[in-house]
Amino acid sequence: MATHLKDIAAYTGVSIKTVSNVVNGNFARVGPETRAIVLEAIQKLNYQPNIAARQLRKSRVGVLAYAFPDLSNPYFADIGNELTAVAAERESTILLDYTYSDRARELDVVKGLRPHLIDGVILDSHALEIEDILPEVVKQPIVLLGERLFGAPFDHVLINNVEAAYTATAHLLKQGRRRIGAIGVQKCQSEAPSLRLEGYKRALEEAGIEMDETLLINGGNWHRADGASAMHTLLTLENPPDAVFCFNDLMALGAMSVLHAEGYRIPEDIAIIGIDDIEDARYAYPALTTIAPDKKEIARLAVSLLIERIQGERTQSTECINAPFYLCERASTLGRAALKEKYCCRSACGHS
Amino acid sequence: MATHLKDIAAYTGVSIKTVSNVVNGNFARVGPETRAIVLEAIQKLNYQPNIAARQLRKSRVGVLAYAFPDLSNPYFADIGNELTAVAAERESTILLDYTYSDRARELDVVKGLRPHLIDGVILDSHALEIEDILPEVVKQPIVLLGERLFGAPFDHVLINNVEAAYTATAHLLKQGRRRIGAIGVQKCQSEAPSLRLEGYKRALEEAGIEMDETLLINGGNWHRADGASAMHTLLTLENPPDAVFCFNDLMALGAMSVLHAEGYRIPEDIAIIGIDDIEDARYAYPALTTIAPDKKEIARLAVSLLIERIQGERTQSTECINAPFYLCERASTLGRAALKEKYCCRSACGHS
Repeated sequence: MATHLKDIAAYTGVSIKTVSNVVNGNFARVGPETRAIVLEAIQKLNYQPNIAARQLRKSRVGVLAYAFPDLSNPYFADIGNELTAVAAERESTILLDYTYSDRARELDVVKGLRPHLIDGVILDSHALEIEDILPEVVKQPIVLLGERLFGAPFDHVLINNVEAAYTATAHLLKQGRRRIGAIGVQKCQSEAPSLRLEGYKRALEEAGIEMDETLLINGGNWHRADGASAMHTLLTLENPPDAVFCFNDLMALGAMSVLHAEGYRIPEDIAIIGIDDIEDARYAYPALTTIAPDKKEIARLAVSLLIERIQGERTQSTECINAPFYLCERASTLGRAALKEKYCCRSACGHS
Repeated sequence: MATHLKDIAAYTGVSIKTVSNVVNGNFARVGPETRAIVLEAIQKLNYQPNIAARQLRKSRVGVLAYAFPDLSNPYFADIGNELTAVAAERESTILLDYTYSDRARELDVVKGLRPHLIDGVILDSHALEIEDILPEVVKQPIVLLGERLFGAPFDHVLINNVEAAYTATAHLLKQGRRRIGAIGVQKCQSEAPSLRLEGYKRALEEAGIEMDETLLINGGNWHRADGASAMHTLLTLENPPDAVFCFNDLMALGAMSVLHAEGYRIPEDIAIIGIDDIEDARYAYPALTTIAPDKKEIARLAVSLLIERIQGERTQSTECINAPFYLCERASTLGRAALKEKYCCRSACGHS
């Protein structure tokens, strides 16, 4: 049964007016102790403001939140920039909500304790479970990004991770590589590692190459330092790889720094490919071959779907929509000479 | 004369209660047209909620905003991460407010149209003038970061840019470089370029080297592409430089990509140094020598000063406080061999 303002008032012994002030962020009229008591009760009784009723009042604020897990990974900054641009075209503003993958922060975001400030949320969650975002719990319009919470009852935008990883691995095979390492293989909250591993395996299978478990390395937090540490591990193998598929660009950049430090040539000794197409990858030495998710299209889909839900224009069942991705062939797999012969990197990517 | 709620009510013909609802973000009770009318009047009449009165009520929300200009530059993400960590120790949350250097967005931030949501603002402004943030205009506690708005009546935290640039240039001179280019030299909203140019000039003067104006190149938006384009310009000179001081790391990384592409050796042919110490610089090839502002200390100072102002514990005149910086000597100026002999890069930086 839904919790109403009067239930919170009864539970806390505070007037309905005061509870309403807290719910609506009208804090100046409420003492700090009272506010704390009411906020605690809001959480405890799982009070949710009635979004549907607000929609009928057409009280759109024009602000969408983008809740993202990691400020240190430029991929999320790229998506934030694209969302900001697309939202501006729709006369909306993007509010960045940095959750640092913290479950409590992510819960705050989906439970919408700031309903007067935000119309809906574009959520790239790293800590919530499906039970946390069932419709009876979350009354706020949400669009999901990223490789988690599949099957949750919200529109969901991402790339086909299996296909992307297959494309990356097949590209390395096409360059004649046969002993291909993978960095970022791990069991974790996100399904990105297992989906990417699946694409990797499928490409090897098709090429008739047996997978070697010793070439699959954990990627920790998927930062540069994790890629560097994983590459060190691969280099200690009796039979090191001739190519490495890193499950994101940051790890690939970390791995390349180790290859430079240890005197390996990229790609002559070991070829490297990543996923994400962050700007850093384009300016790295050698420039990093990568899978580029179409970030503009991801942003366009996310904003459109969310605004349509908020305005009640989209009432059909929720969908999981795949945005396109592109293979950006650069020097870290092709070599500088081959690349110059073939074509300019930027045109190869289909987008600069 | 200060504007009060009743002035806005009189101006708009809306009830004081309704104006109060809008001011306090209590939008659910106000129709969209009315809200638009009231918000317009708030701007027009320059209404400011009375922060001092709120402080007396001790109604601290525990949320500080960090308004920053550029999501694509990892320097600001680094500062955002440090602020988040420091704020957590003080039981506060950082709300990211991405202004993309837009004057209207920055004005919204300092005028505090969200007083119920935010206690104060840490502002790295790229578009406001001192007149925009005079105390009679802005009633919200603010601490400034960055190389702008010197002399504004707010506490201000930054590094000594002249000293930092002097240190960078002196380091290149110490490596025997005599023809030192500078990328990022321009007249613009920020004083960073002119301060850094001043430090560069002083170091050259002390070394008895006459400055060559053809070696000073505009850095556009200070992104990788700008550094690349500036480096192209330097390479077309009849007498190209033997070292380049880039006024930030992103431009340095762009410049290095051009040197690689054109077959120059770093640092043997041209040495490169930057400012910022973003993670990217540490993992670049060669690892980039840079000036590292002490970001932890910048964050600690900003949060402490702001919270003390909010709580009324700090009542003295505002100050401009310099945080320390460090020279991180890496391969892009020392060369890999020399660096290995000297010491490990990470310990040289004084912080990993």
